[in-house]
Amino acid sequence: MIATTPKPPYYAVIFTSILVEGEMGYEEMSNKMVALAKKQEGFLGIESARNELGITVSYWDSLLAIKNWKMDVDHTYAREKGRSSWYKKFMVRISKVERDYGFEK
Amino acid sequence: MIATTPKPPYYAVIFTSILVEGEMGYEEMSNKMVALAKKQEGFLGIESARNELGITVSYWDSLLAIKNWKMDVDHTYAREKGRSSWYKKFMVRISKVERDYGFEK
Repeated sequence: MIATTPKPPYYAVIFTSILVEGEMGYEEMSNKMVALAKKQEGFLGIESARNELGITVSYWDSLLAIKNWKMDVDHTYAREKGRSSWYKKFMVRISKVERDYGFEK
Repeated sequence: MIATTPKPPYYAVIFTSILVEGEMGYEEMSNKMVALAKKQEGFLGIESARNELGITVSYWDSLLAIKNWKMDVDHTYAREKGRSSWYKKFMVRISKVERDYGFEK
C-alpha cells in the first residue's frame, strides 16, 4: 500500500481532488486507470486515499514517463470524462523527490 | 481543503503511513500538529486523506522551512510518539514541485 520506490531522485505526481456528488462510474474508471498506469514504462508505484478530499500520488522514473502517461489515449479519455463528470476541483503537482526515508515496526 | 499554493517552485513533503490498531490519542495529536505546522514560517498548505493508508502532503517555501519544522520540539515529541505508539509503517518523501495546474468547475 505504501509504494516501494527506488533511491531518489525520482518523480511524484501529487493529484488532489474533490468529486461532485453522485460520481457514477468514477470508482470503476479510477481502478482501470491505476491498472493501466502500472503497465506504463517508468511507473514506480502509486498511493491513494480519499475522504472528502482525495489524494493520489504516483511515482515515476522520469518526466518523460509522466508525459507519456499523460498522452496515453485511454488516460486522456478518462481525464476528459473527469473534467466533464466527476471532478468538482482538482490540482496536479509534478515534483521531484530529492530525499526519502521510512520506518517499519 | 485543496491547498492554495504559490507559483512553483516550492516543496512538498509527502507523508504516507499505516497506523497500528487502537491508535489511541493519534487523531488529537494529528490535529494539534496540523495547527502547529500552520504557524511555522514558510508553511504554504496541507492536504490530508486516510483510509487504510493515510496520505498527508504539506507544502513549504524552502528546505530550510522543512528542516525547522522537523526540529520543532513539540513536533519532535509527536514524531517519537508516532514511532513508539501509532505507526506501523511510514514513508517520508521530500520533493520539489516543479509544475502545477488545476481545474475548478
